[in-house]
Amino acid sequence: MVNDEFYLSLALKEAWKYQGLTYPNPSVGALILDRDGKILSIAAHKRANEAHAELNAAAEAFYELSKEKAILNIKDPFKLHSYLLKNHNNLFRNFTIYVTLEPCSHIGKTPSCATLIKELGFKRVVIGSMDINKAASGGADILEKAGIEVKVGVLKKECDLLIEPFKKWQKGKPFIFFKLAQTQNGAVTGGVISSLKSRELVHKLRDRIDLLVIGGNTVRVDRPILDCRLIDSKKAPDVLIFTKNPESIDRSIPLFNVKNRNVFVESSLKRIFSYKFVMIEGGEGMLNAAKDMIDWFLLFISPKFSLKDNLKSTISLKRLHFFSLDDDIVVWNKVINDF
Amino acid sequence: MVNDEFYLSLALKEAWKYQGLTYPNPSVGALILDRDGKILSIAAHKRANEAHAELNAAAEAFYELSKEKAILNIKDPFKLHSYLLKNHNNLFRNFTIYVTLEPCSHIGKTPSCATLIKELGFKRVVIGSMDINKAASGGADILEKAGIEVKVGVLKKECDLLIEPFKKWQKGKPFIFFKLAQTQNGAVTGGVISSLKSRELVHKLRDRIDLLVIGGNTVRVDRPILDCRLIDSKKAPDVLIFTKNPESIDRSIPLFNVKNRNVFVESSLKRIFSYKFVMIEGGEGMLNAAKDMIDWFLLFISPKFSLKDNLKSTISLKRLHFFSLDDDIVVWNKVINDF
Repeated sequence: MVNDEFYLSLALKEAWKYQGLTYPNPSVGALILDRDGKILSIAAHKRANEAHAELNAAAEAFYELSKEKAILNIKDPFKLHSYLLKNHNNLFRNFTIYVTLEPCSHIGKTPSCATLIKELGFKRVVIGSMDINKAASGGADILEKAGIEVKVGVLKKECDLLIEPFKKWQKGKPFIFFKLAQTQNGAVTGGVISSLKSRELVHKLRDRIDLLVIGGNTVRVDRPILDCRLIDSKKAPDVLIFTKNPESIDRSIPLFNVKNRNVFVESSLKRIFSYKFVMIEGGEGMLNAAKDMIDWFLLFISPKFSLKDNLKSTISLKRLHFFSLDDDIVVWNKVINDF
Repeated sequence: MVNDEFYLSLALKEAWKYQGLTYPNPSVGALILDRDGKILSIAAHKRANEAHAELNAAAEAFYELSKEKAILNIKDPFKLHSYLLKNHNNLFRNFTIYVTLEPCSHIGKTPSCATLIKELGFKRVVIGSMDINKAASGGADILEKAGIEVKVGVLKKECDLLIEPFKKWQKGKPFIFFKLAQTQNGAVTGGVISSLKSRELVHKLRDRIDLLVIGGNTVRVDRPILDCRLIDSKKAPDVLIFTKNPESIDRSIPLFNVKNRNVFVESSLKRIFSYKFVMIEGGEGMLNAAKDMIDWFLLFISPKFSLKDNLKSTISLKRLHFFSLDDDIVVWNKVINDF
């Protein structure tokens, strides 16, 4: 059935590609239909300080209709917003926009999306989740007062799950996820497992998080650098090496020499709670030590089979979303503690 | 980018849901856009002797436009075809249809889809693969001669892979796939692993295949019935129990007493080659014994983690498609022998 749920699910799918990469902002996806019901654009918010999903979708739709290439080169969200307001020429009149999260009402690091939608002349706005951020909420009100038809709560459960990390950040709590790569038959050792694009996504996540936790055993065996070189980023998260024997870690290995990084070698995981966005990498020991504090579990599954063992754990997971990245399947899971 | 590839990928995705279930026909998906570019329907061929994808998509689009419920109750493809020809009232004029496989030209167990598309007044047809079946091919010619714009070869590689089983059947060769269920961490033992919908899909596949191969060890341990009870089908495939010790199999277990079934207990897999559509179920021993003759590998991944072992193999796989079924991820893989 081609209905509101269908269109919003396409916007959701686009948003999930950037899950975690928008920190401290929520992941958001948007889709625009023209007045005849044709899909013009599907877009997402990709990174904090960059354009929101609605603005990206409007820019893509504008290009689709006008073929004016100038808009493709505008990166600054304020300039993009102004360009659209100045040049839209009523192109968007009577269009529909689907957004996984209520369009923001306020002018913050980017302009207000509710105002944009109003000014461009949209007829209908379909929203998944309502915004829980007091400063940004109220977008639906602005739209309704402008006479726009607003439908709220389509795929609400799915759209609420998409922004769980954001909800934790809003409450001042850390959002913690475990990352693992395995072969299709579950083997977790034996050299590089995941594809280049998967490893690039991991480096992008390292670029956004503020703490990376890793098991002492992995550090001893792999001697990793834990930087973001695959995406040419100079950023590097702080590192907490979790080990029963802090003195056993060789402090001459490269990860200790990455600029702008604090490295902690500790036998407790308490430090996690002084950070906001935390990724844990490691194997069976690390997972089982951290499993009661993890919010989500990110699994990369390569197509390979191997003769190596799987990782054993009794962690309880519920699948949130999965997508393809080169040859790999990427799975975001939620940890269910009240099982 | 919302383009021909995008729309055909939606049709492909729909077709994959019925992979294997259309035997001896190919899996096919179709999508219809109205004259303004709005998606009206996405449909697939679901089972031999039932409507082809194009006919299902046209019926769904007709209902969408006319809201005439009568069409929803017509199951016979000839009657559905006639109903559309009689009642279309030029509703489809200047529409576009996307089909993963060239529309059939001949009247066989169902009417010709090329004729349907021509008579309904479509303006444009976008095709993935060209049909390799001599009796059914020539659909694109019929359409072009009728003045319809025909674009061929969009997502050709993906659409060709979708019909690999059909290509084997056309050559008179058996198509053989291995089916396995595992937890998200790769464990393959420990009771029921996959969701009800996944097990229903397995029973549907059992209903369509003509031979089920199973390892002697699985028969000894699980004493399975290997029927299609979850989908209320009375059909049951022939069974080949593969074991080094045929005399060790207890012939009083239920699988020997299923009606209309031949059961063979043999120490060779040669019998497979006198069948056309073969599913192999079993564990590590069965997979490694059969891995050089398997075409595809079907994996059900549940969200669970467990303390059990994974299945070890050096089989080389390339992922073809994956989708969600209840809580599980269903993955179709192709076996790459020339690695």
